[in-house]
Amino acid sequence: MSVSAQKNLPLRPGERGATAGAFHIEDVYPAIECGRYAVKRAAGEAIEVWADVYRSGHDILAAELIWRRENSSSWQRAPMTIFENDRWVGRFTPTEPGRYEYAIEAWTDTFASWRHGFELKQKAGQDVSLDALEGAALLAQPISADEQTTSFVRRQLDAYLQTGKIDLLLSDELAAALTSSQERPDLTRSRLYPLVIDRERAIHGAWYEMIPRSQSTVPGRHGTFRDCIARLPDVAAMGFDVLYFTPIHPVGVTNRKGRNNSLKSEPGDPGSFYAIGSKDGGHTAIEPQLGTLDDFRALVDACKPHGIEVALDIAVQCSPDHPWIREHPEWFKKRPDGSMRYAENPPKKYEDIHNPDFGCADAGSLWNALRDVILFWVDQGVRIFRIDNPHTKPFNFWEWLIREVQARDPGVIFLAEAFTRPKLMKGLAKLGYTQSYTYFTWRTQKWEIEAYLNELTGHPERDYYRPNFFVNTPDILPYHLQGGEPWMFKSRLALAAALSGNYGIYNGFELLEHVPIPGREEYLDSEKYEIKTRDWNKPGNIKPYVTALNRARRANPALQQTRNLRFLPLDNGNVIAFVKHDTAAHNVVVGAISLSRDAQDFWLPLGGVEVNAGGGRKAPLALENLITRERRAVEWGGVHLRIDPMLDPALLFRCLV
Amino acid sequence: MSVSAQKNLPLRPGERGATAGAFHIEDVYPAIECGRYAVKRAAGEAIEVWADVYRSGHDILAAELIWRRENSSSWQRAPMTIFENDRWVGRFTPTEPGRYEYAIEAWTDTFASWRHGFELKQKAGQDVSLDALEGAALLAQPISADEQTTSFVRRQLDAYLQTGKIDLLLSDELAAALTSSQERPDLTRSRLYPLVIDRERAIHGAWYEMIPRSQSTVPGRHGTFRDCIARLPDVAAMGFDVLYFTPIHPVGVTNRKGRNNSLKSEPGDPGSFYAIGSKDGGHTAIEPQLGTLDDFRALVDACKPHGIEVALDIAVQCSPDHPWIREHPEWFKKRPDGSMRYAENPPKKYEDIHNPDFGCADAGSLWNALRDVILFWVDQGVRIFRIDNPHTKPFNFWEWLIREVQARDPGVIFLAEAFTRPKLMKGLAKLGYTQSYTYFTWRTQKWEIEAYLNELTGHPERDYYRPNFFVNTPDILPYHLQGGEPWMFKSRLALAAALSGNYGIYNGFELLEHVPIPGREEYLDSEKYEIKTRDWNKPGNIKPYVTALNRARRANPALQQTRNLRFLPLDNGNVIAFVKHDTAAHNVVVGAISLSRDAQDFWLPLGGVEVNAGGGRKAPLALENLITRERRAVEWGGVHLRIDPMLDPALLFRCLV
Repeated sequence: MSVSAQKNLPLRPGERGATAGAFHIEDVYPAIECGRYAVKRAAGEAIEVWADVYRSGHDILAAELIWRRENSSSWQRAPMTIFENDRWVGRFTPTEPGRYEYAIEAWTDTFASWRHGFELKQKAGQDVSLDALEGAALLAQPISADEQTTSFVRRQLDAYLQTGKIDLLLSDELAAALTSSQERPDLTRSRLYPLVIDRERAIHGAWYEMIPRSQSTVPGRHGTFRDCIARLPDVAAMGFDVLYFTPIHPVGVTNRKGRNNSLKSEPGDPGSFYAIGSKDGGHTAIEPQLGTLDDFRALVDACKPHGIEVALDIAVQCSPDHPWIREHPEWFKKRPDGSMRYAENPPKKYEDIHNPDFGCADAGSLWNALRDVILFWVDQGVRIFRIDNPHTKPFNFWEWLIREVQARDPGVIFLAEAFTRPKLMKGLAKLGYTQSYTYFTWRTQKWEIEAYLNELTGHPERDYYRPNFFVNTPDILPYHLQGGEPWMFKSRLALAAALSGNYGIYNGFELLEHVPIPGREEYLDSEKYEIKTRDWNKPGNIKPYVTALNRARRANPALQQTRNLRFLPLDNGNVIAFVKHDTAAHNVVVGAISLSRDAQDFWLPLGGVEVNAGGGRKAPLALENLITRERRAVEWGGVHLRIDPMLDPALLFRCLV
Repeated sequence: MSVSAQKNLPLRPGERGATAGAFHIEDVYPAIECGRYAVKRAAGEAIEVWADVYRSGHDILAAELIWRRENSSSWQRAPMTIFENDRWVGRFTPTEPGRYEYAIEAWTDTFASWRHGFELKQKAGQDVSLDALEGAALLAQPISADEQTTSFVRRQLDAYLQTGKIDLLLSDELAAALTSSQERPDLTRSRLYPLVIDRERAIHGAWYEMIPRSQSTVPGRHGTFRDCIARLPDVAAMGFDVLYFTPIHPVGVTNRKGRNNSLKSEPGDPGSFYAIGSKDGGHTAIEPQLGTLDDFRALVDACKPHGIEVALDIAVQCSPDHPWIREHPEWFKKRPDGSMRYAENPPKKYEDIHNPDFGCADAGSLWNALRDVILFWVDQGVRIFRIDNPHTKPFNFWEWLIREVQARDPGVIFLAEAFTRPKLMKGLAKLGYTQSYTYFTWRTQKWEIEAYLNELTGHPERDYYRPNFFVNTPDILPYHLQGGEPWMFKSRLALAAALSGNYGIYNGFELLEHVPIPGREEYLDSEKYEIKTRDWNKPGNIKPYVTALNRARRANPALQQTRNLRFLPLDNGNVIAFVKHDTAAHNVVVGAISLSRDAQDFWLPLGGVEVNAGGGRKAPLALENLITRERRAVEWGGVHLRIDPMLDPALLFRCLV
């Protein structure tokens, strides 16, 4: 017999009968681009899998969700139950980071089908003597069960055969025993769906971006890793989880850039730390003025007691002095005059760097070398990498590299610093980046913030795109911060910290630094090109505000995620209101954040906001301010609130029942 | 180098470089269940294919839509253009019925990328001498083009090399010539998406269901195919396209059912024509009382001059007297007492039929025999099959059978008579059924009719589910027809004929037959179990109304499809209003149909209704009634209408500009 295209993979191709693949298993959720890319979730989080499962005829079916570590030889199994309209659901909870896969199996529940028909006939008063024999025959079939179950089934059968009491065949206990243990005719398996389970820090973290060479307390002196260690108590006190360093590698000399990105540097200019590589080494070396590899390891270790992790910025580009230029000229493109092509984004020129050619004849050795750069730093204790401009390198390179590195350590986190077109940013997230930069930095109006967050927390983005909201970066001083108004800095900080599980500030934000290159969204005298020395406790700083927000995040699991965001409708265009539920932790946070400097009075309706309490869900009776601990009774389904942004542009509450 | 999972198929696996598969081709539309099932379209219809296409970096890309007959060795190609936000679109138009497949290819447009960068640098006043050399070098690369194009490119290059005039490298003509002819680095192909192109009758047709043995003019005499031939002028005059016969095979004797489905038949009872098979043969034989195979062929031929096609009802079930019972006992299940299992849907019993066991040990020969039944009737000139209860047979059997039959003749149409759960009905449509029965027969309220049609004409159903709306069937006399009110019969007829490209009536509807088994939606004295003789011109019949509607359908291409349906908002819960556009035919039909017996006055807003005219789209200036030819001017963006259902519950208009 020639049977053409089967939808589902037969379980054992050699043993496929006429009705194998008879089940349709469709519209599986979650699934990214039909299972091409992995769904992302957190370790310890229950994963609900939904699918349409159906077959022809009137037989009763059974379905299981099966899952395993990628390439593991054995499956774990969880039952699926029907929800409605042939839609089934099951759940499982991986507890360890790593790559997994899941699938759905369905088969005909022969005994349940028999029992259902039998009971209908019996109820209709029909002769069921033959049917009873058929049921007994099913009990005599081999089953796969533990000894206890097997002997229970046999005892029921024997009792029936001795007494002829039909009720012995109809017990729920017997049906349940057989559903899982009897043979599984028509067994059909869906395709496999990939899943990446990440550790907690991938889901939430407060990032502090620091330029290590600017950490000296002596004006004009190049900072060192020891200076960074001295800053740790301050960073930890503010409540940050991740200390993120711009590149720490030797800075090139040839074509070194001067202050404010000038093409010519003056003597003593430190150059851009993105011009990577000098006679002192390349991507696995450390700029000697920062210290030694031992110093770096000491820094990584010093972070630990503070609960802080180091993140490194990796930029795949080479200064003309990078050792690879000399050792691997075949990795770089030449121009018709024999010169080496420098980086360009016409008409912009980056004469202080060369990009390797990922499609060169010897691409294999280049790809391996770049992977080994990451693995080198993993060996130094770094497990978070912010990748610079990943969208300008081949996407299949990143997919390969991330898989290679996470095969070594599934806890390694990759953050994609791509500010480019939306499909490319999403593509990087799909192919494996753990976290992604976003357009948040430029979203300032209520409608656009809500639209953007609804997109990121909607389907399918919610299952693969993990935003990391930066309020500023060394490259971006957005217009709305250029006035230096404290309420605006606080409002932006509160939006980032409350709406997104992952957010970050670039150092100086807490000091309200805000002087731009006129007319541009860039910092004047950018420390990308010069060394700064700051008073980290400069009057007017908002460090207490940063500290309070990070403390509120740590105390409330609902704020430690992004996908749970839901905006609340509010008749005020200047205030964003939202709720975040953490059902498992019984933690529900409601927030209202002002986008305007003026005081705002408004009614916050709490319809649909519910808290798990005593086995059920209840509307909150009161709200407790996360910062001030003040309580507000919920009356008439909501609360009347007033925000004075000069005091605090954000109100964050825990729901009480 | 180990490069893991590539999303897209490399074009030539042996020639894949480091950046092959660098393109992402995603979110392809149309696609059913990720390309598992075929999209359905009509011959001659332009098919628009959309996809996200992107790659890393700043290079300019090019994309083509490729398509072919399934298994053809060569592809046809259509250019794709970018719409916005990395979303591309292309179109192609298959003109012949059959199975096709399409895919998307994308590659880096090297010359366009060079030209774009060159122009940006030139505009910025940068030195472009090296860049010009690089562009010239691209022109010297081999191209795949006709002689004229090749020599044009060479001439441009030579002229540049002689004169050094850079403009020679920058002409649009040169860029266009190279986009299609230059080598295609990073060439990436999406997966293949299947497509079924059907002939016109699959898309629209008015069906008339007839019981052949009831066509005699002499009371009590078994009708014959000759009697059916005598009915043809009447059926044709009413404007029907498809004459659909209930099973014509020999009717079984053993356990024959009597009148009104009684378990015991009286002498002379003809039995149910769904109890197929007797000593006179099975599914490839003809009930002798109807005539011979030659008579049947004569009937098929006699239909042709009337523009009518015959559709046959195929029920895969066997009376106890069917030859297969004797010749192939291995195809049927036995019970513990050795008897053959009859059909059941507990507690319902069908003792006059046995269902073959599709999973039996010799399933291969059973499947082949059933396929050969269809092919036998195809050989007799039948190209439309209504399949009885397909949802109770394995879905992979149907997928195989339909593919086998359509490989012989892609014009064969299969209609799934499944009244069951929605996912199963949709599953049958996905796996290959050309048309499907629907819940229309029971949808009577405005909201539920609109919701159901919006579902069937929405995404993704619109691309695979072709409804055939039956107002009644031999099995179903819906409650709303049981009053026998002419306006209700007309309203239901108008809804079916106007909303759906395919619709049908079961004979007797035009005579307003409406006597039920009390309390049930079934005909009393059903002709499934007895022979009827009717006066086909019985006073009070609505044949003129049927005729007028079918004439309107034939005259208006917009009514010859279903996917183009759009409901118009109307402040009247008793009236359904809609518009159907056929842009290519410049035909736009607007309709309003009453669901109430009372006269309805309402304003019909025509916002968004536009007609192609003189190269642009215009709002209609007037509406012309399809039946009466009366014209109504469109003023203030709509028309005021009055429906008196006692005259006509439906108003159908053609839009005039």
